[in-house]
Amino acid sequence: MFQLALDYLQETQSRVEARLVDFLPKSHSAPEIERFYRLMLDYPTRPGKRLRPALCLLMCQAFGGEAKKAIDTAVALELLQSWLLIHDDIEDASILRRGVPCLHQEHGIPLAINVGDGLHCKMWEILIRNQVDLGYDLTFQILSEFIQLSNRVVEGQHIELSWVANNTWTLTEQDYWQMCVQKTAWYTCITPCRLGALIGGAEAGELDAFIEIGMNLGVAFQIQDDVLNLVGEERVYGKEIGGDIEEGKRTLILIHLLKTCSEVEQERLTHIMDKPRGEKTADDIQHILELAKLYGSIAYAQQRAKSLADKAHQAFQHRFAHLGDSAAREAKSVFSNLIRFIIERKH
Amino acid sequence: MFQLALDYLQETQSRVEARLVDFLPKSHSAPEIERFYRLMLDYPTRPGKRLRPALCLLMCQAFGGEAKKAIDTAVALELLQSWLLIHDDIEDASILRRGVPCLHQEHGIPLAINVGDGLHCKMWEILIRNQVDLGYDLTFQILSEFIQLSNRVVEGQHIELSWVANNTWTLTEQDYWQMCVQKTAWYTCITPCRLGALIGGAEAGELDAFIEIGMNLGVAFQIQDDVLNLVGEERVYGKEIGGDIEEGKRTLILIHLLKTCSEVEQERLTHIMDKPRGEKTADDIQHILELAKLYGSIAYAQQRAKSLADKAHQAFQHRFAHLGDSAAREAKSVFSNLIRFIIERKH
Repeated sequence: MFQLALDYLQETQSRVEARLVDFLPKSHSAPEIERFYRLMLDYPTRPGKRLRPALCLLMCQAFGGEAKKAIDTAVALELLQSWLLIHDDIEDASILRRGVPCLHQEHGIPLAINVGDGLHCKMWEILIRNQVDLGYDLTFQILSEFIQLSNRVVEGQHIELSWVANNTWTLTEQDYWQMCVQKTAWYTCITPCRLGALIGGAEAGELDAFIEIGMNLGVAFQIQDDVLNLVGEERVYGKEIGGDIEEGKRTLILIHLLKTCSEVEQERLTHIMDKPRGEKTADDIQHILELAKLYGSIAYAQQRAKSLADKAHQAFQHRFAHLGDSAAREAKSVFSNLIRFIIERKH
Repeated sequence: MFQLALDYLQETQSRVEARLVDFLPKSHSAPEIERFYRLMLDYPTRPGKRLRPALCLLMCQAFGGEAKKAIDTAVALELLQSWLLIHDDIEDASILRRGVPCLHQEHGIPLAINVGDGLHCKMWEILIRNQVDLGYDLTFQILSEFIQLSNRVVEGQHIELSWVANNTWTLTEQDYWQMCVQKTAWYTCITPCRLGALIGGAEAGELDAFIEIGMNLGVAFQIQDDVLNLVGEERVYGKEIGGDIEEGKRTLILIHLLKTCSEVEQERLTHIMDKPRGEKTADDIQHILELAKLYGSIAYAQQRAKSLADKAHQAFQHRFAHLGDSAAREAKSVFSNLIRFIIERKH
């Protein structure tokens, strides 16, 4: 169904992991510091989709560049993902990540915050090292992309955390969209594509086309994530099913449900969602899941994801019709297939 | 007694704060994001000593540079300090910072972690912006200094957090020294001096002289901090007195005390120190304080700080005797005075 995408992700995974493991420090004369290095290797080497580095390498190829020029930048995207996830898992009091306990669950919050900070530093380190192979100008352009990106991600994260902290429920689909663009779309789609295209040799105007494409695709990705979090299979998905409800997350499904259910149901819903983590019962979670099915909120979300992904696909085909050599054509086929993967994936 | 140092710190404070406030974002169309910006401004604008930016600006002047060339790098040191403190305060479960409640005490751990991450990103942003005024080469050298520095700081932080997490007490003065060099000396003294000298035009060999000088001075700074934490005045010091005991910190004072007290006292001491935060009583803390006085551990630490600072002072005078123009002579006088401030300060 999306074998082309899976093959490309698999190939990216091997290349990115090899470079990641090569880049991160492993040995030190002080055993405590060596242990720190082992903790830093944990999240980056847990099995992941490697979607972000794949988009980066793929777009590099589509614009005529050699993927190896983009490998360190792709690794930086994976390091970004790692430190964000470690901190995000603490902020959300999550339990599982990629099928095993979150870092803070195993080593405590203090050590885990610091491991995240260590990986954050390593992200900038590998980006700065780009200078050796890519020269000053391109390295600075890549750094600027990461500056823009990281500013947006922390802002998006703040919005989402504030909604939970302040028990905010008067949210529209537009609010969800804005949060999602800041929190997910930039770092999952827009910037990875822009970076690959930039390194591949795209022009500034071409880079900007990825804002709209990546916005639609990134929000589609997040919606599918919200769906899997409710109806996925834990072993495949890698996080605890219903975790978003536990964590009080404002998903598109929930926003749709609150808009369509009765007032009494609405009240019960927000009452459950506002309970602190640990106080929500299995029945509470089951109740919300059933209501979401009853009111078609899950189907609605899936439909939205599909239509956003279609928009992204059409815009991409239209905007980059001129990329016609064999490497570009191959990359474009993989990208089309990746879009399908994004909205139909199970993990 | 150290008026010259205080005046210089005061002057640095005005310049650095003005640039900090100018640099950090303040307004956004989304009220939630604007609130995030206000939280990011909190720690950087709390009254602090501004020792790190002062050392940077001062060394720039000593080596013949204009301080304004170093201002953004000095601000980056203050941003480093801010994100480190926000995360450190969570990791240590601290209560007060610079006289008022820690960020996580007021806004919760999730939002506070993310504000720290936001400031971390801003640190790299201002360093990358250096390129406009300082050009590529110097900007990259500065970035490399920050890479080295940040790697060391997280490693030092890991060592200290691990000692607490693992109830490690078999520690020597040498262990304390190593942790302190990684955690404090690099970011408080070595790198700020190296950065200022680099921007001022020093040669590579001259920069390396700051490793030994800054190591001695940085550990002296930390020891004085440990002393103030026990016998300081809360209103002046800005953190809760005895907080290090509450947090289980392995200070030089404690290591000396454990080595010199009786076996029975040793046992009671580690028993108290291993209690989780909140379970230590006021009597527990008072007991340790009295024991530290009785065995001369506080006086011992003060003596060590003084002798390290003297060593740093002599090495500096000897190594940089050749810097003789009037601006350099003035900077050297301030530096001598700053060294005194570092070991005699009350905050």
